[in-house]
Amino acid sequence: MRILAIDTSNQLMSVALLDDDRLIIERTVNVKRNHSIQLMPAIEEMMKEAEWRPKDLTRIVVAKGPGSYTGVRIGVTVAKTLAFSLDIELVGVSSLEVLAANGAQIEGSYCIPLFDARRGNIYTGLYQYQDNTLVQVEKDTHISAEQWAKYLKQLDGPLQLLGEDRLKHMELFEEECGERLIELPSSRHFARASVLAERGKNREPENKHVFEPEYLKLAEAEQNWMEAHPDFKQGGGWIEKL
Amino acid sequence: MRILAIDTSNQLMSVALLDDDRLIIERTVNVKRNHSIQLMPAIEEMMKEAEWRPKDLTRIVVAKGPGSYTGVRIGVTVAKTLAFSLDIELVGVSSLEVLAANGAQIEGSYCIPLFDARRGNIYTGLYQYQDNTLVQVEKDTHISAEQWAKYLKQLDGPLQLLGEDRLKHMELFEEECGERLIELPSSRHFARASVLAERGKNREPENKHVFEPEYLKLAEAEQNWMEAHPDFKQGGGWIEKL
Repeated sequence: MRILAIDTSNQLMSVALLDDDRLIIERTVNVKRNHSIQLMPAIEEMMKEAEWRPKDLTRIVVAKGPGSYTGVRIGVTVAKTLAFSLDIELVGVSSLEVLAANGAQIEGSYCIPLFDARRGNIYTGLYQYQDNTLVQVEKDTHISAEQWAKYLKQLDGPLQLLGEDRLKHMELFEEECGERLIELPSSRHFARASVLAERGKNREPENKHVFEPEYLKLAEAEQNWMEAHPDFKQGGGWIEKL
Repeated sequence: MRILAIDTSNQLMSVALLDDDRLIIERTVNVKRNHSIQLMPAIEEMMKEAEWRPKDLTRIVVAKGPGSYTGVRIGVTVAKTLAFSLDIELVGVSSLEVLAANGAQIEGSYCIPLFDARRGNIYTGLYQYQDNTLVQVEKDTHISAEQWAKYLKQLDGPLQLLGEDRLKHMELFEEECGERLIELPSSRHFARASVLAERGKNREPENKHVFEPEYLKLAEAEQNWMEAHPDFKQGGGWIEKL
């Protein structure tokens, strides 16, 4: 199975090619730029370096969010387009799950991936390594960092916060969870596309035509529109009926 | 601290730029090619992408072996040359240690990094996570896979073999250590330059002028020469005295 894995869901852009379990090329860039400009050239260059042709690919695994709206959309759109045009499998994996997998297998400890979602909010989730396998304990969520810190406080066991964005909210977490926080080596805070590929390798492929990102919250513009149109029920068409 | 980390010691080539704990760019290539041709262009391209100038660098961390003679020499030579010409710090880290750091923090378990050294031999070492810190239990060594498997057999606790090359000797290890072997997720078997940087970040810089790779064994040509010249004592000059 020849996999192309794409994660542009957050500031980091990570792309990898894998041949079954074998990493062929991985490239992770953490520079504030436009993923929409960087992504396709990066894929093209890596394919060339690996001497793979597009038709060699058998599966695309994409980080489906949550994260930046634009970032998630770019990754998912490119993944869907490639999967559709090459007629190959497409799998989406939670961006938070990829980060959580970087956690340490410490007995009874929680892996807590975290992306900043502005205005004091975060995207986060609760994972745990049980018998050497990553298990999702709580669904991925969009929540205020304050509420989340209070929630973590009442859990047992050491807490591993994962992701660079943890630093933006560290004061809060230290206040609530203090000495239960474990600081991992710095390289563990970056979501890598090879881990994404690993998570998506054995999953059932998505239906390419209906596959959608998982934003976990409405975009600000959508939120404003909903507030201005209280009668509008989500899920309907956007054209007002007369 | 702006770090350039270089690992060309084995088949994998991994290069990374880090700003203190922050990964900026990492590129890992696992294609059988010539590191001597790939390395400098890769560094140049990454520096450009990060918008760093050579004089922005403050430290170079290099994987100093063991591994392929040519690979180790290329990495160490480029690292020494850059450190010398830019007048910045140079740190060498064992290639095996970088791989060992990918291991899981499972209580009482050993992290055993492994590179094939041909003719049934391997480069390997014994590491362990103790209190969330990677500790070296046995010195890195060059040994026959068979002997190493017997040595591991008499240890207690689960064993994590690390590195793609483990697959070449798996039969032996399975025979001796069977159910005590833990198979890690595939992405853990690739040594990444960001982990290398992390390991070398806080170490005392080397003396650039005398810094040497750690081959752990003589090259085949040297070995043959030594066998043909039994009177020659290692460490002397190569010119025969009259």
